[in-house]
Amino acid sequence: MEHYVVTYDIADDKRRMKVFKTLKDYGTHVQESVFEVVLTTEDYVALRHKLLRRIHRDEDSVIFYRQCRACENDVERLGRKVELVGIGDIVL
Amino acid sequence: MEHYVVTYDIADDKRRMKVFKTLKDYGTHVQESVFEVVLTTEDYVALRHKLLRRIHRDEDSVIFYRQCRACENDVERLGRKVELVGIGDIVL
Repeated sequence: MEHYVVTYDIADDKRRMKVFKTLKDYGTHVQESVFEVVLTTEDYVALRHKLLRRIHRDEDSVIFYRQCRACENDVERLGRKVELVGIGDIVL
Repeated sequence: MEHYVVTYDIADDKRRMKVFKTLKDYGTHVQESVFEVVLTTEDYVALRHKLLRRIHRDEDSVIFYRQCRACENDVERLGRKVELVGIGDIVL
């Protein structure tokens, strides 16, 4: 299992909602367009495939940032507390 | 020098612009509320301090995700190409 931060910038409201709903199945919504997810290799491939089918590649952007254990331990959160409660929960 | 992904979720438009302008001095704007920055320890402390002075801690959220060399090499960008041109450039 690997930890990832997935950020997205989607031009269209409908597509953005679809991307949000897709990511919700894999991890925690920590900011407006940021999820923290924990993925097996199979999950990664499946999630990537689903997102590619939902975005318009010339207008939208999705980025996967891997977070190894060391990087993950260094995360710093300023401001509003975010409860990392697990898959599917919205914590805003 | 360390690489970081800085994501932010700012409730107020004016504050959001201030956070954007602050981050622009340190790195590259890759998505609506995501910057990639390269920071010395001093830069990190200074940037953190500036952001804390600009956000409302109960409403806004800023997260620093460190990216070690290995994590950085694994970044995957789907969709719109982002030119990582360097400090201060907006590439949307």
